[in-house]
Amino acid sequence: MTHISEPIMNLAREAKKAARTLSALSSETKNRALLRMADRLEEEAAGLIEENRKDLEGAEHKGLSAAMTDRLRLTDAVIADMARGLREVAALPDPVGAVTGMWKRPNGLLVGRMRIPLGVIGIIYESRPNVTADAAALCLKSGNSVILRGGSEAIHSNLAITAVLREVLQAEGIPGGAIQTVATTDRSAVEELLTLEDYIDLIIPRGGEELIRTVVRLSRIPVIKHYKGVCHVFVDADADMERAVDICVNAKAQRPGVCNAMETLLVHRDIAGEFLPRVAERLREAGVVLRGCEETRAVLPDIDEATEEDWSTEYLDLILSIRVVDDIDQAMDHIAAYGSLHTEAIVTNDYHNAQRFISEVNSSTVLANASTRFSDGFQLGLGAEIGISTTKLHAFGPMGLEELTTTKFIIYGDGQLRS
Amino acid sequence: MTHISEPIMNLAREAKKAARTLSALSSETKNRALLRMADRLEEEAAGLIEENRKDLEGAEHKGLSAAMTDRLRLTDAVIADMARGLREVAALPDPVGAVTGMWKRPNGLLVGRMRIPLGVIGIIYESRPNVTADAAALCLKSGNSVILRGGSEAIHSNLAITAVLREVLQAEGIPGGAIQTVATTDRSAVEELLTLEDYIDLIIPRGGEELIRTVVRLSRIPVIKHYKGVCHVFVDADADMERAVDICVNAKAQRPGVCNAMETLLVHRDIAGEFLPRVAERLREAGVVLRGCEETRAVLPDIDEATEEDWSTEYLDLILSIRVVDDIDQAMDHIAAYGSLHTEAIVTNDYHNAQRFISEVNSSTVLANASTRFSDGFQLGLGAEIGISTTKLHAFGPMGLEELTTTKFIIYGDGQLRS
Repeated sequence: MTHISEPIMNLAREAKKAARTLSALSSETKNRALLRMADRLEEEAAGLIEENRKDLEGAEHKGLSAAMTDRLRLTDAVIADMARGLREVAALPDPVGAVTGMWKRPNGLLVGRMRIPLGVIGIIYESRPNVTADAAALCLKSGNSVILRGGSEAIHSNLAITAVLREVLQAEGIPGGAIQTVATTDRSAVEELLTLEDYIDLIIPRGGEELIRTVVRLSRIPVIKHYKGVCHVFVDADADMERAVDICVNAKAQRPGVCNAMETLLVHRDIAGEFLPRVAERLREAGVVLRGCEETRAVLPDIDEATEEDWSTEYLDLILSIRVVDDIDQAMDHIAAYGSLHTEAIVTNDYHNAQRFISEVNSSTVLANASTRFSDGFQLGLGAEIGISTTKLHAFGPMGLEELTTTKFIIYGDGQLRS
Repeated sequence: MTHISEPIMNLAREAKKAARTLSALSSETKNRALLRMADRLEEEAAGLIEENRKDLEGAEHKGLSAAMTDRLRLTDAVIADMARGLREVAALPDPVGAVTGMWKRPNGLLVGRMRIPLGVIGIIYESRPNVTADAAALCLKSGNSVILRGGSEAIHSNLAITAVLREVLQAEGIPGGAIQTVATTDRSAVEELLTLEDYIDLIIPRGGEELIRTVVRLSRIPVIKHYKGVCHVFVDADADMERAVDICVNAKAQRPGVCNAMETLLVHRDIAGEFLPRVAERLREAGVVLRGCEETRAVLPDIDEATEEDWSTEYLDLILSIRVVDDIDQAMDHIAAYGSLHTEAIVTNDYHNAQRFISEVNSSTVLANASTRFSDGFQLGLGAEIGISTTKLHAFGPMGLEELTTTKFIIYGDGQLRS
């Protein structure tokens, strides 16, 4: 049994207590708080940047990479973005209380399902302090308490942002337990949180694969996560060649460092000879380094061999592995064997193959004739994104506000008894 | 790292391989197999009863209680019930492939959500061998592979039932990995299964609280479960007195040993003097032993005191604890403090209070003016029930076929690129 320290236990208790109030809060109150938080973050920008400086100095001291340090930095522009994010969340429809269906039973019972908040959500994340405001806003709007545990490298920034948000909670009469940050950078705090299944309903880890694997191993609370995105594009025999090239370049190079970028290109044998040189030229122009199977290298002899390891690697970089396949079946077998259930696309003009791919590939997002880069909560029209799940339970794919709720059964009776 | 034995690893591999085939299986094929399984179980009744005898002898040897032994026993009637259950599942609509919504984005992308199977489901259960056929049928119908792990006391019965089901799979050309039983009664087998997160998508434990807590502690795979059902009925000040009595007697005594039976009765102070004697008389006629708070005992002086422990106890027996409350707020506070998120009912003619209770009590099933005993997949019209969840993630309340599926995003494009 893990020992729970008093500060963590208090955090959990306050969060659970606040959750009851939050679940009954009107949309008006929540939206007013969110808009006020946006204003206050902008008003307090100087103070936030001051606190952020401590983190940046720490980062220099620890020798963090330039990329990491850059993600950590708060500027007026970053703070304005955070504020805009809060205003956008305020403008979204409130999912809480929506009745997703209602039906009448033969005995006259009226049975329905009503959306309610999950309760208390723990978010464990790294680096970017803007996640603090984003996550807090989405949890508040969906009526959930949130316990935030950012990386130790961002502790001053995160505490400063949370202080501003909590000041608004107080002004609006919302319990402070609604938004809390773990004040210590002690690793044991995370381990304690992950055992509090009677207080916390969901854990969302956001960060590197190692962080996420550790959370899953230690948690007794349900975890929604994705480890990685090894996304595929399959270019079928009768794809429109130009469209296929455009989609591949967009999927790989438009923003290579994100999880919905293509990592492996599968090409139907019948068009490999014509398609591969065309796509290779455009990809190289975009700075992409290619690796290929034997057949790919017969067409593109100057590229390196793709090894077995390449097929399951998420490069998050301007690198692409290419394999020539016999047909759609071999493409789908490859995806089943090496994919990460994230996002896959087919480019084809064959109606039957498009429908088969959409039906049979059970990744969280499956596209026909569009870039994998559309696998994103905003792009799909969810209005927000708190993360992407490649676990099939509860949420699969990009998660918006609705995915931070569950449904309860509500039943209107008239004295019915069970016989 | 838990060492995975070869038999368990094979089971997991076969299940995952079969899941891909299952997810694309037509409803016709699945239904034909289910109907054939029903016939074959009835045809093989004598052989099943023969195998069951070994378990019953073992039970006698181990000194199992009469109740446990009774739950273990297979008879022609129990087998006929199992067969009827399979036929009912065959008659249910197939959830797989249903598109639960589709919308068009400004860029022309057509975005929808399609129901797909979860993949591989592990079910860990005790005693009743009929769970083997029920669970296998629901998983098959929803396109999932299932790995069954029944109690050691039922191993012969479970293996015999599974053998009949698997023989039908083979005859229908469905991979045997679709339905498998763990052949060993070794406890380590469960521990191994619970670490195979890359092969198994969901664990459903069915049994006592201790079994379930162990599964939750050890599992790296999402678990859907409920520990217990401490269900409440709140009789409001202006409840129809006779209706309230009927509902309370039905909720407590119609079948006291199940999780949706009432365990605590909350009565508004204003009607306690009149209501308590009336309900007490009827409950006593039904054999119910009462315990009460101080105020209850002022009206019913001959009953025992309800202790702090009583308020959070699931009796599963003809015992009821009663508390007099000031009003609906105190009733809801009591439920929040002592409830188990299972099922709560209000009996009232006050429109405002009924609506408040339905909105504000966030248990998995909330009723106005009906018995808690309706919290059941069949009674709510789900057509089946694989379990009840008091975890808010994925499914909350009774779970039917749809809860054994998830949705993926499907996107029909026309060459769209992300800019």
